[in-house]
Amino acid sequence: MTEAVEAYLRQHEARHLEELREFVALPSVSTDSRHAPDVRRAAEWVAAQLRAAGPLDVRVHDTAGHPVVTAEWTGAPGAPTILIYGHYDVQPPDPLDRWDSPPFELSERDGRLYGRGVSDDKAPLLIPIKVVEAYFAAQGTLPVNVKFLFEGEEEIGSPSLAPFVRAHADALRADFVVSADGGMWRADIPTLTVSARGLCGLEFTLRGPAKDLHSGRHGGAVQNPLHAVSALIASLHDPDGRVAVAGFYDGVADPSPKERADYAALPFDEEAYLREVGSPGPFGEPGYTTLERQWRRPTLEVNGLWGGYTGEGSKTVLPSEAHAKITCRLVPGQDPQAVRDKVAAHLHTHCPPGVTLDLHLSDHGAPAYRIPDDHLGLRVARAAQRDVYGTEPLTVGMGGSIPICETFHEALGMDTVFFSFAVGDENIHAPNEFFRLPRFGEGTRAWARYFAHLAHLEEPAAI
Amino acid sequence: MTEAVEAYLRQHEARHLEELREFVALPSVSTDSRHAPDVRRAAEWVAAQLRAAGPLDVRVHDTAGHPVVTAEWTGAPGAPTILIYGHYDVQPPDPLDRWDSPPFELSERDGRLYGRGVSDDKAPLLIPIKVVEAYFAAQGTLPVNVKFLFEGEEEIGSPSLAPFVRAHADALRADFVVSADGGMWRADIPTLTVSARGLCGLEFTLRGPAKDLHSGRHGGAVQNPLHAVSALIASLHDPDGRVAVAGFYDGVADPSPKERADYAALPFDEEAYLREVGSPGPFGEPGYTTLERQWRRPTLEVNGLWGGYTGEGSKTVLPSEAHAKITCRLVPGQDPQAVRDKVAAHLHTHCPPGVTLDLHLSDHGAPAYRIPDDHLGLRVARAAQRDVYGTEPLTVGMGGSIPICETFHEALGMDTVFFSFAVGDENIHAPNEFFRLPRFGEGTRAWARYFAHLAHLEEPAAI
Repeated sequence: MTEAVEAYLRQHEARHLEELREFVALPSVSTDSRHAPDVRRAAEWVAAQLRAAGPLDVRVHDTAGHPVVTAEWTGAPGAPTILIYGHYDVQPPDPLDRWDSPPFELSERDGRLYGRGVSDDKAPLLIPIKVVEAYFAAQGTLPVNVKFLFEGEEEIGSPSLAPFVRAHADALRADFVVSADGGMWRADIPTLTVSARGLCGLEFTLRGPAKDLHSGRHGGAVQNPLHAVSALIASLHDPDGRVAVAGFYDGVADPSPKERADYAALPFDEEAYLREVGSPGPFGEPGYTTLERQWRRPTLEVNGLWGGYTGEGSKTVLPSEAHAKITCRLVPGQDPQAVRDKVAAHLHTHCPPGVTLDLHLSDHGAPAYRIPDDHLGLRVARAAQRDVYGTEPLTVGMGGSIPICETFHEALGMDTVFFSFAVGDENIHAPNEFFRLPRFGEGTRAWARYFAHLAHLEEPAAI
Repeated sequence: MTEAVEAYLRQHEARHLEELREFVALPSVSTDSRHAPDVRRAAEWVAAQLRAAGPLDVRVHDTAGHPVVTAEWTGAPGAPTILIYGHYDVQPPDPLDRWDSPPFELSERDGRLYGRGVSDDKAPLLIPIKVVEAYFAAQGTLPVNVKFLFEGEEEIGSPSLAPFVRAHADALRADFVVSADGGMWRADIPTLTVSARGLCGLEFTLRGPAKDLHSGRHGGAVQNPLHAVSALIASLHDPDGRVAVAGFYDGVADPSPKERADYAALPFDEEAYLREVGSPGPFGEPGYTTLERQWRRPTLEVNGLWGGYTGEGSKTVLPSEAHAKITCRLVPGQDPQAVRDKVAAHLHTHCPPGVTLDLHLSDHGAPAYRIPDDHLGLRVARAAQRDVYGTEPLTVGMGGSIPICETFHEALGMDTVFFSFAVGDENIHAPNEFFRLPRFGEGTRAWARYFAHLAHLEEPAAI
């Protein structure tokens, strides 16, 4: 039923990949205000792609932050409607010296496409646009109604998207959301992700002397903020890795025996995983397996820590300030603001003498999310993956966060199916981010099948 | 006896300060290899100044690192010979955004000359050159024999100077050393420094995963090097500030009752000191006063600490590496290599699981130094200061290090008199380093008197 569509996709894949190259060349780093014009250019580029795909109603919406791009085609009365979500912003490319090719030039090596954002989330976002283009080109229509919602702030916690969704609730309403963001668990087995952890965060500065001091003249007589920040951060965890913040685990339920059995049954080779990430050993909260630690337990991670002289050679300075950035990943039962406030209270309580604590609490957070196991959108996804991979996909969790899922659920009552063809090992948020080239064709074929399976509701039993 | 010399110095002070401006404009940052050409230019500039000052034998010597500049005039047979020491290299100017005027442009504000290195050690180094110039111009000769030894590696631990001194022992031999580096304790009372702490250092890197990871996907399952570095650095001190490294205090004697009484008798206002440095309170090894902590107790200070994302906004990274730079200040009884090795052993013993420790031990260190209280050079210095300030100078210690003193002592049997007109509060090693303008004239006058007092040995009783 999708032969002509798939033929079109094969015939035009080379051009589609050239378009992906254009997309990656736009350095849409949402966290860095110097890149704000690039983020806008990326939004306009996505809008132009949508307009070229077919007779969609495409709009670029200004927000308090970066633009939101929407598109809509509802010419299939009676058929289901899906809202396709993705994000066109990317993480900063730092550290630049660890990239083997320039981060904003798509570079193919050994069947992989390298570039910042290619896996998270530019190739996965482009795939459903190309599938819509293929349907209109090959069949002149789509089998289902589609709405698109692409944001430019996913990497900074989506501060503008939640208000946008609430303000445009009627226009965005659909049967459910299909997210082009998310990423499969592994490259060798098709997987469907049914849960994501939540997120909250804060930054802080410890201030000691009013100016940088000579560590010879003053050392030993006033508190060194680098000593203080180390003691304070060390106090956040027990030596064995459990978070030591009072009340951090309040409301967190242990995984059920069935969940633990399901996790244990997954084909996970811990040795191979540690080799993949290059870590000398597993380390984490005692009493839980690595998969449970990643998917079902909350964490507190320092993402950045700095102070004093960090250049070549030595500088005998006792610095004025030390800085740290922290994020927590949350599981069901945890409220983002409440957890953030508990961490802040811990920092106040444990702040060493001789320095003052200056906290910057982030308001952008999200609780954890989980889709019901028997959700129609998930069953359709299983069918589409079976078509492409010839095998039953595994059900897995996700350690990362897609905060907007909770907004869709809360504001619109819509669940979210993760249907991305990125893989979690593709160096997202790190140097040498890549996307596996064959996954572009697999992804377009799977999305084409998704539309078809969803439209042919005579087959739901098979699904 | 020095009237004509002092008149010359007054008449030419404006030109001398213009020359200081030229000197400061040379960014002779010894720790940064990109500035190596600037360091050499500064050496050549100093040599040209010495050649212009009089009939000295001036040489620029290549070393394994930055050049050494020497000069010599021994036309006063029978008179004492002094070796004048200083350094023409400077600390890095970071953080640049904290300077109120460009660090390498001499800027006068409110009776202060601002610029990187102006206090440490460019103005103090220039002063004795200008005094030699004045003697030759006004009297055609010098009352004592002088040798100059100026290095370009003081800020990186003087790795090339010790071998140089040993290799040129005969040419450098003198009755004692007078150091233009050092700095007075305070601006309002003349002081003579009789001791300096020693120094040793090391850097280390903790390596966790082989690459930066997404803190959502991987957080909680592998060790975060930022958590590990915090725990490791926190383990170096007890919470009350005492160094927790095993054996760190071995061989360190408590100050004697007389020393403690002498320290206690100094006009030191701790509240005023804390206001000056802008620290919220005193903090340090229990059982010692602030002056004892600064001058008579060893310390371990982290000078730099960094890892992960340090830019604007947030980045949810679990970084591959964390880094720290450490220096220790030493007192009599401590061997630099032995202390460094004890710190290294502590780091190995306390390294948390899940990361590997990569140590970079610095070989450049120095033991503490102290000149005998009744040393001739010190008595001459007291007389010269009395002449200029009309009051008896106080005897004080120094928290910082001048490693070459120990080399002079060990290799040449020569003690070192600190005779600098910088003051310890002049933001050395920090933004907005400055030198008090009146101190230039006071310094040239004092050095002129120093030469005269030393030559007129009929007056030693008065001295």
